[in-house]
Amino acid sequence: MGRLSSLFTPERVAVIGATERPGSVGRALVENLQADFGGEIVPVNPNCETVCGLDCVDHVGETDADLAVVAVPAAVAVDVVREAGEAGIDDVVVITAGFGETGGEGADRERDLEAVAEEYDLNLVGPNCLGIISTPVGLNATFAPRSAPSGSVSFLSQSGAFVTAVLDWAADHGVGFKDVVSLGNKAVLDETDFVESWGDDEGTDVIVGYLESIEDGRRFVDVAGEVTRETPVVVVKSGRTEAGAQAASSHTGAMAGRDRAYEAGLRQAGVIRADTVQDLFDAARVLAGQPVPETDGVAVVTNAGGPGVMATDAVGDGPLSLAKFGNDTVSRLRDRLPEGANVYNPVDAIGDADNERLRAAVDTVLADDAVGSAVVIAAPTATLDFVQLAADVADLQADHGLPVTTCLMGGERAREADDTLVEAGIPNYFDPARAVGSLGTLERYRAIRERERREPTTYDVDREAAQAVLDRARERGTTRLGVEAMSLLDAYGIPTPAGEVVDSPVDALEVAEDVGEPVVMKIVSPDILHKSDIGGVKVGVDHADVYDAFEDLVARARNYQPDATILGVQVQEMVETESGVETIVGTNRDPQFGPLILFGLGGIFVEVMEDTAVRIAPLAEADAREMTEEIQAAPLLSGARGRDPVDRDAVAETLCRLSQLVTDFPEILELDVNPLVVRPDGAVAVDLRLTIEL
Amino acid sequence: MGRLSSLFTPERVAVIGATERPGSVGRALVENLQADFGGEIVPVNPNCETVCGLDCVDHVGETDADLAVVAVPAAVAVDVVREAGEAGIDDVVVITAGFGETGGEGADRERDLEAVAEEYDLNLVGPNCLGIISTPVGLNATFAPRSAPSGSVSFLSQSGAFVTAVLDWAADHGVGFKDVVSLGNKAVLDETDFVESWGDDEGTDVIVGYLESIEDGRRFVDVAGEVTRETPVVVVKSGRTEAGAQAASSHTGAMAGRDRAYEAGLRQAGVIRADTVQDLFDAARVLAGQPVPETDGVAVVTNAGGPGVMATDAVGDGPLSLAKFGNDTVSRLRDRLPEGANVYNPVDAIGDADNERLRAAVDTVLADDAVGSAVVIAAPTATLDFVQLAADVADLQADHGLPVTTCLMGGERAREADDTLVEAGIPNYFDPARAVGSLGTLERYRAIRERERREPTTYDVDREAAQAVLDRARERGTTRLGVEAMSLLDAYGIPTPAGEVVDSPVDALEVAEDVGEPVVMKIVSPDILHKSDIGGVKVGVDHADVYDAFEDLVARARNYQPDATILGVQVQEMVETESGVETIVGTNRDPQFGPLILFGLGGIFVEVMEDTAVRIAPLAEADAREMTEEIQAAPLLSGARGRDPVDRDAVAETLCRLSQLVTDFPEILELDVNPLVVRPDGAVAVDLRLTIEL
Repeated sequence: MGRLSSLFTPERVAVIGATERPGSVGRALVENLQADFGGEIVPVNPNCETVCGLDCVDHVGETDADLAVVAVPAAVAVDVVREAGEAGIDDVVVITAGFGETGGEGADRERDLEAVAEEYDLNLVGPNCLGIISTPVGLNATFAPRSAPSGSVSFLSQSGAFVTAVLDWAADHGVGFKDVVSLGNKAVLDETDFVESWGDDEGTDVIVGYLESIEDGRRFVDVAGEVTRETPVVVVKSGRTEAGAQAASSHTGAMAGRDRAYEAGLRQAGVIRADTVQDLFDAARVLAGQPVPETDGVAVVTNAGGPGVMATDAVGDGPLSLAKFGNDTVSRLRDRLPEGANVYNPVDAIGDADNERLRAAVDTVLADDAVGSAVVIAAPTATLDFVQLAADVADLQADHGLPVTTCLMGGERAREADDTLVEAGIPNYFDPARAVGSLGTLERYRAIRERERREPTTYDVDREAAQAVLDRARERGTTRLGVEAMSLLDAYGIPTPAGEVVDSPVDALEVAEDVGEPVVMKIVSPDILHKSDIGGVKVGVDHADVYDAFEDLVARARNYQPDATILGVQVQEMVETESGVETIVGTNRDPQFGPLILFGLGGIFVEVMEDTAVRIAPLAEADAREMTEEIQAAPLLSGARGRDPVDRDAVAETLCRLSQLVTDFPEILELDVNPLVVRPDGAVAVDLRLTIEL
Repeated sequence: MGRLSSLFTPERVAVIGATERPGSVGRALVENLQADFGGEIVPVNPNCETVCGLDCVDHVGETDADLAVVAVPAAVAVDVVREAGEAGIDDVVVITAGFGETGGEGADRERDLEAVAEEYDLNLVGPNCLGIISTPVGLNATFAPRSAPSGSVSFLSQSGAFVTAVLDWAADHGVGFKDVVSLGNKAVLDETDFVESWGDDEGTDVIVGYLESIEDGRRFVDVAGEVTRETPVVVVKSGRTEAGAQAASSHTGAMAGRDRAYEAGLRQAGVIRADTVQDLFDAARVLAGQPVPETDGVAVVTNAGGPGVMATDAVGDGPLSLAKFGNDTVSRLRDRLPEGANVYNPVDAIGDADNERLRAAVDTVLADDAVGSAVVIAAPTATLDFVQLAADVADLQADHGLPVTTCLMGGERAREADDTLVEAGIPNYFDPARAVGSLGTLERYRAIRERERREPTTYDVDREAAQAVLDRARERGTTRLGVEAMSLLDAYGIPTPAGEVVDSPVDALEVAEDVGEPVVMKIVSPDILHKSDIGGVKVGVDHADVYDAFEDLVARARNYQPDATILGVQVQEMVETESGVETIVGTNRDPQFGPLILFGLGGIFVEVMEDTAVRIAPLAEADAREMTEEIQAAPLLSGARGRDPVDRDAVAETLCRLSQLVTDFPEILELDVNPLVVRPDGAVAVDLRLTIEL
């Protein structure tokens, strides 16, 4: 059982604000508890003798309860919670609204509540929530009109209304719950706490959630990253689209953060992100009901060619592949199926198939080593009994121990078979694509569960040198830095071209003579962000032209912006780019997840094609490698169009070193290396821009 | 009524092969007809006196029927159809299997059947099909276990089993049918015939289909292109993925064709393509039940913030936008909703909303001019009655005449409201994303219905000159042509660089002196496809070097392939590419749809990023413009990254001229102009490859 298990296994529940007033929350809470709870229920209300037949006490301190459910008006709620804390109660659910979600006075009240919770070290759910449910002990500490059917899914939701909706719907749809939590304003306990706790809970097979924000993204990634190695976590994180993000933010008052960061964070945590409610519960059903496959090969068995084709199309849409049967399987199928049947995958037992024939076909394919899962599809025919088919499939699933979903295509007929399938945990859909999609979810989870454990890759770096660069900028009061800060990269072992920032033509020539001929010269000014646009970059400057180039660069900068601070001119080794690929490596800071690392190809690829890979820092080298592989333009790194492949390892190392840099220095808000030129034998950072916090 | 209306409105139906044998197709057909059909049913079977209480005749010629349904063994089916034709019956449904789908003898039999159908000008459905249904006359000429609920959706399917599945399912799911056809092997009547006929049928509001192939793609595009201006057409075309395409091809024996061609053809026809069965019937329900919106603004009204956010996310996924309410609407909502409610879109009437409040909110937003459609979302609460809400929404939908979908989030509660919603044609889903997605389908159809009518753009061209080029190649026995055929492009008004193919250094210099300095020189040989790979292209050749370059190119070609046919060396004006963008314009021939035109950016964009636009020829200029806009890299044509925009009109014109060329000359199997260099002031075809049929 998890850390918060006491919350879900109370022996005595105090309902503060209990009342008999019809339609009131206080009454609904008491009645819901009375319905099934095996422990004791103590109503607290100084104005009542009894509530719903239970003796009432005046104060929570008199209850000897281990869980306090608070449904008093907002104005007194904090005091009541304090009383509970004083009485030694550890677990508190605050139903009451009128806190942070209203702003102003409510926000102050929420801060008070947090302080009390901290003082007494409370496990506090809410405020502004529907409550909690735990089916094994019959605990329904919510004011929802209906409790949860029992099962092994634990469910958290940032929307209380969504909980009531799901509870009403779940009973009919084969989804059963262990614990349910309405998170409310998450003043104390948040999604990460419950994910962590349920990760240790034997009664929970699957964790599903509806979230509009994640409080502490970094902690969530760490915690969920561990939990998902044992227990699948599926969430809808709304605010995927710009419109949705705005709506979420106005609904919860929470800063929603950028979806790209959530996408990266959820992925790195091994959380399966569902886009819709349907996808969320399709995933929950199959993860709770079926085992995880051992291979990605799926067998399709059907009595109807068309739906078999639809299922095969859906296989192509997801992570599964159509299993290639062994010869034994093919010949066994040939023995068991009539002429005209297809004995290859998708197996078509044809329209006159009876139950025996379909059973034989399913049994045969499930015995094949190449088959990791199977979908059984049946159109209604005179020769086939769906109830019997459901029973057969349930048997065979149990015998072979492989995941199976079904697509019994019909209305009433299919419903008759439903009980058997629900009992066996076998999801059944009319649409072949959903049946296949469910198996795809299992396959995705297999990859998550089996993924290697990655520690951030770190290197020996010169942290003091980097600190010195940042300190100097701070002393100057500068927040925007450019090539003059290249030594930041040097300090973290990221190769840069030879060169220096100089403030006279004489020095420029001296540096040029050191670094070779020709050179690149760039104006260095915190006030000029787009150097190229004003002619502030000269490429291929011969030594003879260095003087003139220096003067010209300074003149152009002055001309463009007379009061610009000019730090000098950078004279730089000219990096050979012919054999290389220009890439961009960048980082910025997300309010929830901290530093994000971005990788893409230079120029149009990032700007026009928006072809980038993003991760939450810190990175392991394997993460960085994946980034170089997942962009659409990846073939350009591996030698497309007859070119030599470039050094992906050098890219991965640069990404990790950059990740280490921005992790070490939280004052770096944004940093772009553009371009990082990657050649067959290494990578070099040619230009740099960064923004720091003063 | 459509061209095939007689098929669906027979007065007397002959069932040839009728029998009383339990479980037989012949019996099922008679019983299904007996269930509801108002006309006469005549069983035909020389071995029976009566079938199911009906007097039997020996031959179809004795029946005086206007529809013959054939369920005799394959061996005699063609003879029976001939008899029907001789007896003057125009409409024939051949249920019998054992034709083309079995190959060999069956395929011969199918050719015989086609010949008979042609001889007697029969409207013949099948063979190897489930039959047909038409609900207005109670006609169920299928052997399906259940007929169709009546409605305004007409449904065609290349899978008979899928028809039985849908019939079983539809009754419970608010989908009603006008006509249903199982296409079978499509020996005579195919999808295009039914789409055309239903397009003229007043009883059909929506046409939906399941297809594994389209027989005549070009005709389908023309016919459906007209029909979809009045009647929405939605299809699942399976074989989207490679695995699916293989399965489809082995299922029907039909050549499935390439999905990219289907995608283009369906789009150009204005057909809405659904990926899954669920999407297909979601689309059918909403198109049959709700009007098309007049603007893309959608209003979301809810009593629950979370689901409102989910709906808003789904708005961002599709073609709709969140409507921006007028000030009047906002102030009216403020009057009608309590404090804490959100009066902007998505409207949150908050959890304690009763029916009156939600009704007022929905009424208010539907009156706003910016609102084209609305989705009403409700979580179950103590204050809200779902049945009443359904009735209110149905009323308001009818009053305002705007499309509405609902998301009454619950199980039993929602089911109770279902009848009212089904009656009103209002789709209701648990998942907000599906409710929003349905409105998105209406919006997509609005764009289809309102699209301009496009005629292929043609130009004055020199067809004879082009013919001469192809004739010369044919005389030489060459199927692969290169730059030596550039005059083909000249003949169709596509600009090419000045230049000629020459066979001596002296001529080379003469041409070079004409076209300017420097020049580009390329080896010309049908045996050398990748000239650059063997050093067969020289760029920037000065006049002084033309002799040497000529000799070197020939030597390289000889060295690479001693027996290569060398047609000469092309000496070409050097096209300035600095200010231009290299694009690729190509064409190839699809077995179903004829010539396809492809456009993309040169090099990596097509090869690595697979960023192309494809259309079926012939093109209108507007189609060609769209192609230049829909590629991901489109910003590179319109002046991304500080460059001058290039001449999109010239690209569009080139695409249309090429379309005209390949339409005029079906012997051109493949043709690529790579690159077509597009500059701010025009486009020029720099290189050419084509394959022709001898």
